[in-house]
Amino acid sequence: MCRWLAYQGEPLRPSTIVLDAKHSIVAQSLDSPLGAETVNGDGFGFGWYPVADADVAGPRHPSVFRSIEPAWNDQNLREISRAVLSPLFFAHVRAALGPPIQQTNCHPFRHDEWLFMHNGGIAQFDMLRRDLALAVDPGLYPLIQGTTDSEVLFHLALTYGLADDPIAAVGAAVRRVEELGHAAGVPFPMQGTLAVSDGTTLWAFRYSSQGRSRTLFHSADIPTLRAMYPDAERLSLFGDHAQVVVSEPLNDVPGIFHEVGESTVAVLDPDGYHHRPFLDAA
Amino acid sequence: MCRWLAYQGEPLRPSTIVLDAKHSIVAQSLDSPLGAETVNGDGFGFGWYPVADADVAGPRHPSVFRSIEPAWNDQNLREISRAVLSPLFFAHVRAALGPPIQQTNCHPFRHDEWLFMHNGGIAQFDMLRRDLALAVDPGLYPLIQGTTDSEVLFHLALTYGLADDPIAAVGAAVRRVEELGHAAGVPFPMQGTLAVSDGTTLWAFRYSSQGRSRTLFHSADIPTLRAMYPDAERLSLFGDHAQVVVSEPLNDVPGIFHEVGESTVAVLDPDGYHHRPFLDAA
Amino acid sequence: MCRWLAYQGEPLRPSTIVLDAKHSIVAQSLDSPLGAETVNGDGFGFGWYPVADADVAGPRHPSVFRSIEPAWNDQNLREISRAVLSPLFFAHVRAALGPPIQQTNCHPFRHDEWLFMHNGGIAQFDMLRRDLALAVDPGLYPLIQGTTDSEVLFHLALTYGLADDPIAAVGAAVRRVEELGHAAGVPFPMQGTLAVSDGTTLWAFRYSSQGRSRTLFHSADIPTLRAMYPDAERLSLFGDHAQVVVSEPLNDVPGIFHEVGESTVAVLDPDGYHHRPFLDAA
Amino acid sequence: MCRWLAYQGEPLRPSTIVLDAKHSIVAQSLDSPLGAETVNGDGFGFGWYPVADADVAGPRHPSVFRSIEPAWNDQNLREISRAVLSPLFFAHVRAALGPPIQQTNCHPFRHDEWLFMHNGGIAQFDMLRRDLALAVDPGLYPLIQGTTDSEVLFHLALTYGLADDPIAAVGAAVRRVEELGHAAGVPFPMQGTLAVSDGTTLWAFRYSSQGRSRTLFHSADIPTLRAMYPDAERLSLFGDHAQVVVSEPLNDVPGIFHEVGESTVAVLDPDGYHHRPFLDAA
Repeated sequence: MCRWLAYQGEPLRPSTIVLDAKHSIVAQSLDSPLGAETVNGDGFGFGWYPVADADVAGPRHPSVFRSIEPAWNDQNLREISRAVLSPLFFAHVRAALGPPIQQTNCHPFRHDEWLFMHNGGIAQFDMLRRDLALAVDPGLYPLIQGTTDSEVLFHLALTYGLADDPIAAVGAAVRRVEELGHAAGVPFPMQGTLAVSDGTTLWAFRYSSQGRSRTLFHSADIPTLRAMYPDAERLSLFGDHAQVVVSEPLNDVPGIFHEVGESTVAVLDPDGYHHRPFLDAA
Repeated sequence: MCRWLAYQGEPLRPSTIVLDAKHSIVAQSLDSPLGAETVNGDGFGFGWYPVADADVAGPRHPSVFRSIEPAWNDQNLREISRAVLSPLFFAHVRAALGPPIQQTNCHPFRHDEWLFMHNGGIAQFDMLRRDLALAVDPGLYPLIQGTTDSEVLFHLALTYGLADDPIAAVGAAVRRVEELGHAAGVPFPMQGTLAVSDGTTLWAFRYSSQGRSRTLFHSADIPTLRAMYPDAERLSLFGDHAQVVVSEPLNDVPGIFHEVGESTVAVLDPDGYHHRPFLDAA
Repeated sequence: MCRWLAYQGEPLRPSTIVLDAKHSIVAQSLDSPLGAETVNGDGFGFGWYPVADADVAGPRHPSVFRSIEPAWNDQNLREISRAVLSPLFFAHVRAALGPPIQQTNCHPFRHDEWLFMHNGGIAQFDMLRRDLALAVDPGLYPLIQGTTDSEVLFHLALTYGLADDPIAAVGAAVRRVEELGHAAGVPFPMQGTLAVSDGTTLWAFRYSSQGRSRTLFHSADIPTLRAMYPDAERLSLFGDHAQVVVSEPLNDVPGIFHEVGESTVAVLDPDGYHHRPFLDAA
Repeated sequence: MCRWLAYQGEPLRPSTIVLDAKHSIVAQSLDSPLGAETVNGDGFGFGWYPVADADVAGPRHPSVFRSIEPAWNDQNLREISRAVLSPLFFAHVRAALGPPIQQTNCHPFRHDEWLFMHNGGIAQFDMLRRDLALAVDPGLYPLIQGTTDSEVLFHLALTYGLADDPIAAVGAAVRRVEELGHAAGVPFPMQGTLAVSDGTTLWAFRYSSQGRSRTLFHSADIPTLRAMYPDAERLSLFGDHAQVVVSEPLNDVPGIFHEVGESTVAVLDPDGYHHRPFLDAA
C-alpha cells in the first residue's frame, strides 16, 4: 500500500537515496515493481534527525516534512533532501486505500524523539477503528491527528511502552490488534512492515498475521560492497557504517540488498545490522 | 472561528451571495468585521442540494465541494457557485484554531441527505475528545472522517435522532457536550451557531453555554424589502421566498438583516421564517 | 503525456464516463494501458457546458474545475461530475513532462465560449517557447495564464481565427509551430491529439509532424450498439446521440470504439460523427 | 502586496524571526499593520543559504521551499525553519493581486547562487507583460517559470548583469520598466522593495516611480541594542553581526528598527550595514 526507506549511518545527503538511486523511493512512488500497488502517489513524508552536536546531550528531535502531492514531481522534497545532512532519516510514499489524503495521514508520525512509519494495514480497519482507539492510553488519545490505522498502531505501541522497550511494545501493539481483530471475526488482522527510531537506533519489523508480509530488504555492509565492486564510484558517497532498510531494493545490482525474513525485527545501530525473531506468525 | 451562510428559497445561482454581495461569505473570508477572527482563510466548503425534479420522489442528495485553500482567491469556487442553481445551499469559511487544515475538517459535513455546519467550538476539545467520541453511536463512529469538534457534534446529533426530530436531537447533543464538559471541569463547554438541513427545511441554531454566542442574522422577507427599496435592482435577483441565515449581514443596508436571538432555533422552510427558543442558557 | 475524453450528445451525468466506466478517464489517470506514460497523476481538469436554455440565445459559457491533485482520489471531482448534467464536456488527466504542476497548466483551457485540450507536446518547447509566444496576437498574449506548450498552441489557434474557422485555425497554428520548429532545427515539432469546442460542435484532431500520433478513438453510434448488444444495461444510460472521443477505449468490448486515423479531424455535432483529412504529415 | 524579511549574520535558526518574533513574517501574513494589504495569505516562500564550509570554495547554492498555503498555519514551514541553520535567508509572504497562486509565483526566485524577492508591483503589468518579456535576454527567457511581474523583473536584472554589478543591474532593470511603462502611457510603472543576494552580501532596494514606496526597515546593530536593553534575553539569540531588513518592524520596541529611505539601496554584508542613493525618483 506504500513504500518506505530508512537510513542509519554517517551523515548523508538524503537525496542520494531518496532521489538519485535507480529505484529511489521517489522512483518507487511512480513505479514500484514489488509493491502491492504500482503507484504510490497519495502523498509522502520525510523525517530526519539532525547531525549530532557534541555540546547537546539527550535525545535528538526529528523534523518532518509531509505533503499530499505525489513525491515524483514535488519540488520541495528535492530541495529539502538535498539541503540537509542527516545520520538517520525516514522517507515514505503512500498509496491510500481508505483514509483520506491529508498531511496528517502521511508518514512518518512523530512523538517526542520517536519516528514511526508503516507499509501495510490493519484489515477491516473501519470496523475495528473504535475498539483500537479505545485501546490507546487516554492520555495519548488526543495526540492522534489523522485517521490512519498506522497512526493508531503507533499510539498503541506508545501505550505499551515504546520508549522503554521498542520491540516488546510493538509486539504488544500487534498482539492487541490481533486480539481485537479476532474477536471481531477478522482472520488476519495485521499486515505490514514497520520502522521505528529514537534517533540512534532503527528498528524495522516485518510481520503479518498470515505470515505473508510486504517485502523488506536491508543493505549489505559498505566495506563488503566495496570489496565486491571496487570500481563502483557511487559507493564512495557512503560511509563505512551506512545502512538502509527499504521496501524494495534501490537498484538491481546483485548482492547489495538482502531480504529481511518473515516475523523478524531488524535492528540497525552504530554497531551495524542484526536481527531476531519477532512474534510468531503460526 | 468561522463564518457561514445558508440559503433557502427559489433556485438561485449561489454566486449571487457567495461571491457578489458586498460582505459575501467570500469577502468575509478575508475580512470579517463581526467575526471572532478577522481572517477565515483556513479552507472552505460549499454544499448544495439540486433543483427538485418532479419525477424523483424522496430526499434530495446534496453535493459538497471542499478545499483547504482560502476562499478569497479560489478559482474553482467561483466556477462552481456560478455554474449551479440550487434551492438550498450552505457555504462556510474556516478559521482553524486547533484541528488541522484538511478537506475532512472543512464544513459542511454530510450524512445521507443531511448537511451540517458550525461556527464556534467545544471548549477544551482536546481534553473532551475521547469522551465525546465514545458518546457517538458505535455504528456511526467509523463515518467520522476528520478531527474537528464540529464533526463529532454532528455525529452526536445523528446519534440522538437528527433524522426524526432535528431540534430535539441537536438539543440532546448540546446537552451531552455540556454534561461531559462540566464533568471534566469545563465551565462553558458549548459555543456557536449551527446550520442543519435535510434539503427542504433549514434549521439554524444560536446557542452557547455562557449565553454569549457568535452572531447570527436572518434576512427580511423579499416582498417587504421590495416595498422598502423599490429602486434596488439587486433585489430582482431573488424570488419572493428567498431567505438567508448568515453569521453577519451581507451588506450594510438597514432593515435587511435581523439578529437571531440567543438560545434560539430559526426554521426556514417553504412557508417562510419562524423561530423558537432553544434550550436555556441559564 | 496525458489522457483526455470529450462527450457530445444528450445531457449526461459526466460521472458515467469520467468515473464509472471500466477504463474511465479517472481510471486512466492511475493506469493507462495505451498511454505514452502509464500514470497521469499530475493534476486534471473538467470543463462542461450547461444544458441549453431555450430562453437564452447565443453561445453557452463553459465552467472549468481544475486541480493539481491526482484525479484518482479527488473527492471534489467525484462530487461535481455527479452533480451536473451536461450535453458537452471535456475531462483531462495530466502527466507533466516539463511545465510545473499548477492549476494554470491543467487542461482544458478556456477563451470566451471555447474550450481546448491537448495530449502530446511541442518538441523542445523550452527552446521554441519565446518564438511561439511572439507569434501569438499581442492582444491575446496577456491572457496566457500558465506555462504549457498546449496553452500557447490554443492562443495561436485563437490568433489564426479559431472562432471563424476552427479547422483552418488549428491547421495554421500547427503549421506555425512546425515552421518555427524547423527553423530551429527540430525535425518533428508537433505531436498530439487536440479537442476544441464552442459548446455545440466538438472538433478532435489527431496529428503529428512525424505521422506517429498519440492514440485517439471515437465511439460507435448508440443505436448501432444497442442492436449489437441488446442486453447491455449500461447502454440505457446514454441517449441516441451520445458520442465520445477519447485517448483510449473506455472498455474492452469489441465494436464500441474505433480509431481516429492519422492526420484526421473528427467532427461531432448534433448530426453525428464525421471526419476529414487534416493537414498532411508527409 | 506582500511582506518580506531578509537576514544576514551569524548562522541563525530562521524560526527565531520567521516564526517567534512578535511581528514575525508569519504573523505579518495574517495581520500586517503597515502593509498595503492586511492579509498576505496567498502562498509564501523561504530561501536559505547553507552554513559556509571551509573546505568548499565558490558560491553557496541556496535552497528554496515554497507553498501556496497561507504561512500562518503551514506546518512544514515551522519544521524547516526550526531545522536548519543559515547565515543568510529570505522569507516572503504573498498577497496576490493578479497573477495566480501557484508555487512558481512564490518568492524568492533563484538563479544559480542568486536569490531575489519583491514587495510591490509593476503597474498595469498585463498591458506591459509582453514588452517586458521581450526585453529579457532570449537565453534567460525559457528560465521564467511563473507569471509574476517580479520574476520578469528579476530576469531583467539578470539580463543587465546582476552577477557583475547588482546595483547597476537592478537600476537598469527598473529604468527599462519605466521606459516601457511610460511608452505605454503608465505614469508610475515601478513600485516596491527588492531583496537580492549572492549568499554573502544582501542588497535591499526601496524605490518607486512616484517616490511613494512600500515601507522598509533595517535593524540596529546588536551591540548597540545590547547596550540599550541590557536585560533583553531575546537579544542573546543573536550574534554580534546579525542584521535584518524587513517590510515592517518585527516588534514595537523603540530603537530597534530604522526606516530605509526612499530611493535607497541598503547593503548588508559581513562588514555591517551601509546604504546609498538608488536612482532618482524625480
